Amino acid sequence: MKQVNNALYKTTIHIGASKLKQVLWYYTDILFFNNSLLPFSGIKVFFLRAFGATVGKQVVIKPAVKIKYPWKLKIGNYSWIGEQVWIDNLDNITIGKSVCISQGAFLLTGNHNYKKVTFDLITAPIVIEEGVWIGASAIVCPGVICKTHAVLSVASVATKNLEPYFIYKGNPAIKTVERIIH
Amino acid sequence: MKQVNNALYKTTIHIGASKLKQVLWYYTDILFFNNSLLPFSGIKVFFLRAFGATVGKQVVIKPAVKIKYPWKLKIGNYSWIGEQVWIDNLDNITIGKSVCISQGAFLLTGNHNYKKVTFDLITAPIVIEEGVWIGASAIVCPGVICKTHAVLSVASVATKNLEPYFIYKGNPAIKTVERIIH
Amino acid sequence: MKQVNNALYKTTIHIGASKLKQVLWYYTDILFFNNSLLPFSGIKVFFLRAFGATVGKQVVIKPAVKIKYPWKLKIGNYSWIGEQVWIDNLDNITIGKSVCISQGAFLLTGNHNYKKVTFDLITAPIVIEEGVWIGASAIVCPGVICKTHAVLSVASVATKNLEPYFIYKGNPAIKTVERIIH
Repeated sequence: MKQVNNALYKTTIHIGASKLKQVLWYYTDILFFNNSLLPFSGIKVFFLRAFGATVGKQVVIKPAVKIKYPWKLKIGNYSWIGEQVWIDNLDNITIGKSVCISQGAFLLTGNHNYKKVTFDLITAPIVIEEGVWIGASAIVCPGVICKTHAVLSVASVATKNLEPYFIYKGNPAIKTVERIIH
Repeated sequence: MKQVNNALYKTTIHIGASKLKQVLWYYTDILFFNNSLLPFSGIKVFFLRAFGATVGKQVVIKPAVKIKYPWKLKIGNYSWIGEQVWIDNLDNITIGKSVCISQGAFLLTGNHNYKKVTFDLITAPIVIEEGVWIGASAIVCPGVICKTHAVLSVASVATKNLEPYFIYKGNPAIKTVERIIH
Repeated sequence: MKQVNNALYKTTIHIGASKLKQVLWYYTDILFFNNSLLPFSGIKVFFLRAFGATVGKQVVIKPAVKIKYPWKLKIGNYSWIGEQVWIDNLDNITIGKSVCISQGAFLLTGNHNYKKVTFDLITAPIVIEEGVWIGASAIVCPGVICKTHAVLSVASVATKNLEPYFIYKGNPAIKTVERIIH
């Protein structure tokens, strides 16, 4: 059997920002996002836009959020990013309007090619369409599209696309009942 | 199909404390609970009681714990709250005596009515009776009663009540064998 | 039915370091490991070795990692410890070479004897052999051996040994397909 050799690993990801911008964001994330000292969303939305994110109006960013690259992030109007949400966007993450990402959820865009000796990094974007609810401590895997008004329930893991207006549960998440909105 | 509109959302939760008390607790939680600087339980128990929690004797509160509203929290004698436990008690959480909540566990009392355009917040209390063990990284969902001496094993998710003296496993947690104590 | 009584609990674990060393490590962990202020691995590897860990060359330690007892930790050459990985090594954890422990993973060595009134602590070591990949937010339970080049996928929970060159998924993790490396 062949063996993985991490010493051969090379990052090939296109980061899309200068070294300086990366460092500035790294510490902005630590100072204003990762902790709970500033519970207000306004200043965070200001920083996100300043670093290249597209952020709609009345977006709520709760405390202790972690965002990898704001220049790879779009958030629509009236959407909420809950406490301790981890947006690990090595690749683009697009969040529609009136989306709720609940506390402790994790959006994951990075993967490794475990079939290669070089263990290459693979990234894939995430799309979370209008009205979707990602439950507390739920995980969205790389490349997943959560279609309009889908629900990923608490601690569930979305490994495939979620169909519109359906509730998904479990690890991996399975389609259950329809979401009917009155 | 109808669409959710977060702009119509109104919090209806009864917080049960003045704005000042909320702000004071918010920063007490950050300074003395959320981090690991003070590993001793005594001062934390003092603060919890000062903010309205009922805390028994010889209660252990490990570092990096997060508590939403102490005035909605009761903890019995000899109970332990492990490292990085998140007590997200928008609603009442009642913990009996000799309970162990292991590290990384998450007690969740908030939900949303995903069947309504207004995406209303719904809360429900949690009760964890005497001798229960909530395993590391396990999650207890809103409204769940963990009956006396039930065990929720590591990384399991309790979505329904746990019967007394039974071991539960999985996501969602399923009843397995009986807990026999010698 | 008998009842657990935490008041009778006694820690019996052999910590393997003086009180002073424990306190010094506790604050070193907080200052240099648990936060993101120092993203560089070099100084962390230096501290780990100074406190008794065996750490190979070109090991990467990402930010916000948590390590219980470095003197109970071995990490082989070219291995990576991802962001927010929690190495809760009350017992020995041995990580081989070219291992990847992805972000948010949790290595758990402590357990309780829930069949005893005294709720005794039980610990068991973890071994993660060469070329293993522990996915993001995955959990390895006490006593588990992850054999060479096994893969534990995202958010999966290893409760039993993982066979070499196989992919495991789910909670609890189930053996799926073979890992073939080209």
